[in-house]
Amino acid sequence: MPEPIVLLVEDEPLVLLVAQDALEAGGYTVLPVQLASEALKVLDTRIAELSGVVTDIRLPGGSDGWAIARHARELKPDLPVVYTTSDGAADWPARGVPNSVVVQKPYAGAQLLTALSTLVTKADTNRTN
Amino acid sequence: MPEPIVLLVEDEPLVLLVAQDALEAGGYTVLPVQLASEALKVLDTRIAELSGVVTDIRLPGGSDGWAIARHARELKPDLPVVYTTSDGAADWPARGVPNSVVVQKPYAGAQLLTALSTLVTKADTNRTN
Amino acid sequence: MPEPIVLLVEDEPLVLLVAQDALEAGGYTVLPVQLASEALKVLDTRIAELSGVVTDIRLPGGSDGWAIARHARELKPDLPVVYTTSDGAADWPARGVPNSVVVQKPYAGAQLLTALSTLVTKADTNRTN
Amino acid sequence: MPEPIVLLVEDEPLVLLVAQDALEAGGYTVLPVQLASEALKVLDTRIAELSGVVTDIRLPGGSDGWAIARHARELKPDLPVVYTTSDGAADWPARGVPNSVVVQKPYAGAQLLTALSTLVTKADTNRTN
Amino acid sequence: MPEPIVLLVEDEPLVLLVAQDALEAGGYTVLPVQLASEALKVLDTRIAELSGVVTDIRLPGGSDGWAIARHARELKPDLPVVYTTSDGAADWPARGVPNSVVVQKPYAGAQLLTALSTLVTKADTNRTN
Amino acid sequence: MPEPIVLLVEDEPLVLLVAQDALEAGGYTVLPVQLASEALKVLDTRIAELSGVVTDIRLPGGSDGWAIARHARELKPDLPVVYTTSDGAADWPARGVPNSVVVQKPYAGAQLLTALSTLVTKADTNRTN
Repeated sequence: MPEPIVLLVEDEPLVLLVAQDALEAGGYTVLPVQLASEALKVLDTRIAELSGVVTDIRLPGGSDGWAIARHARELKPDLPVVYTTSDGAADWPARGVPNSVVVQKPYAGAQLLTALSTLVTKADTNRTN
Repeated sequence: MPEPIVLLVEDEPLVLLVAQDALEAGGYTVLPVQLASEALKVLDTRIAELSGVVTDIRLPGGSDGWAIARHARELKPDLPVVYTTSDGAADWPARGVPNSVVVQKPYAGAQLLTALSTLVTKADTNRTN
Repeated sequence: MPEPIVLLVEDEPLVLLVAQDALEAGGYTVLPVQLASEALKVLDTRIAELSGVVTDIRLPGGSDGWAIARHARELKPDLPVVYTTSDGAADWPARGVPNSVVVQKPYAGAQLLTALSTLVTKADTNRTN
Repeated sequence: MPEPIVLLVEDEPLVLLVAQDALEAGGYTVLPVQLASEALKVLDTRIAELSGVVTDIRLPGGSDGWAIARHARELKPDLPVVYTTSDGAADWPARGVPNSVVVQKPYAGAQLLTALSTLVTKADTNRTN
Repeated sequence: MPEPIVLLVEDEPLVLLVAQDALEAGGYTVLPVQLASEALKVLDTRIAELSGVVTDIRLPGGSDGWAIARHARELKPDLPVVYTTSDGAADWPARGVPNSVVVQKPYAGAQLLTALSTLVTKADTNRTN
Repeated sequence: MPEPIVLLVEDEPLVLLVAQDALEAGGYTVLPVQLASEALKVLDTRIAELSGVVTDIRLPGGSDGWAIARHARELKPDLPVVYTTSDGAADWPARGVPNSVVVQKPYAGAQLLTALSTLVTKADTNRTN
């Protein structure tokens, strides 16, 4: 069985590592990127393969997690979105996309894995009707 | 007991009437506006009084329901938002705000009232902690 | 604005009246039927117009509420379904359809109206993506 | 069809009136009481008939809404509970009962009716399994 | 502490392996079967021990996942049910059981584990009242 | 990245071990205690550091899981709470705190991890507004 693929956007290398390890241990293939600009490129070229996006909110590379998630949803309206953040997410009610969640740093790997997996199952179940 | 106040944005006069009637019969005081520009003005001047926003998505007046809801949430992050639409809401997953709902036209007055009331109770309950 | 149309299946005339009154007062147009066989006919001929089904579980006419709901969902997979019952609904976990609810008799008109309206809004909102 | 019965606990006469009107208009029979001590008595003598409790948090009569709800749940574990309050409900996360909601005053009658009805349907649906 | 037991129904040996590994790594004891007929036998003889069912929809052995889940719920009304599928689950709204979810193949092991665990906790929590 | 810290209250040493292993494997740092009195002390001295509480209901040490959870919520109103129990949790509807869940023993480690992680994400997401 091939693995579902997740875009992971995180500029802090150590956090990226923890997140990637947790998601891979759970059976996801991870596309890790550190710049917002790269993330947008991955979305434009590989959206059909993606089962979810995990993105930090504050990012280098001329854009941010809000824009990445919005672009992802324009391309695939039911794509699961998990935002991660270490400075709170006061803008989420205004700038987040519907049916997304926020995971505050520092987080346990299992929290990220559970958050993503829960959204993927909701999308799978809703897609049936 | 004074009544909670709701901003209602709808450019079709007959639909506006049905919606206003339903909300008022349910015990809400309604601020009805027909232009997006007016809606934005009401938000800027009376946000503190508002308990919710019901907004059509496609609107005259140089803006739309997505922008109205986003601006409302910038001013009051837990404000209940109900979008109404007669041409579907394919953009909702990308442009809607979190914890909002979509009501498709033609709708029953009770659907609008229930949708708004459910979101107000969720906001009231979450505000406790 | 035309009204959304709901199929209401209930063999007890007095209960049918209460339910019909409540739904109509809330802005729904009601198609009332008292036999399961009629209900199945309405589904086959008018499914495209329907916004929801409210059905008693135990019914005369050679079928029951479980079969009506299942047939409705075969024709329109996201149709809201409310089951009503006066002898409990012990079979619901095995025979009910997903995303349906149970309303026990005697019920308040507002309970039926809220149950139906809540499911219609969920369907409207999910249909966007 | 007889009507489901709800215990309504509210010491401000005008608010009691608005709430009672809204619930009765929705098809509930209301037992209105103004003292916590009376509420506890009604629970002890008529619990079997009750379909829900709506209670103000701060009350005269030697007790409060937290105690009323807790006592109600000891007698009937799945009874719907709606708390109402005009000074916030900061204690809800510590003192409220599970599966209850908070409605902040001033509220629209429809909000109270929707909150109660939603909880009654959840209880009806869960009682099936 | 003994482990909770889950019936896993999957006819593709490699997928069965991935699923079994994920569930066992999460602390569940797995009863793996490849035929629908075997699954029905396990339900009839060991239902009391089971904490959940994970079943593929399309199966050899004269029956399918819809029938397995329905039979399981007849025997134990609050049993958690996860359907898995590689060709979508267009019949789920008509043929699935309430409070079940769909997991689309290919899935990550963590998705299956999270889906099952979430349903078990809901059942545990609802069983209290 | 430091790890989020969870208070784990369990008097049976073998169960404590299974739970601690599961939570640590998921990336949480666990403060394990076996007496209710110790648990209350940890809450009073280290509440600011805690991301969640997992507590058995029946405990030695002059108190129980209901009191621990209530005290935790007085100190931190949005703290995630998971109750564990081997004799059912018939008192949960009256004595549990809102937005908590019950996990029945024997449980799989993944169930505990998923239950806790789900509540932490809900708290993280609600904290944004």
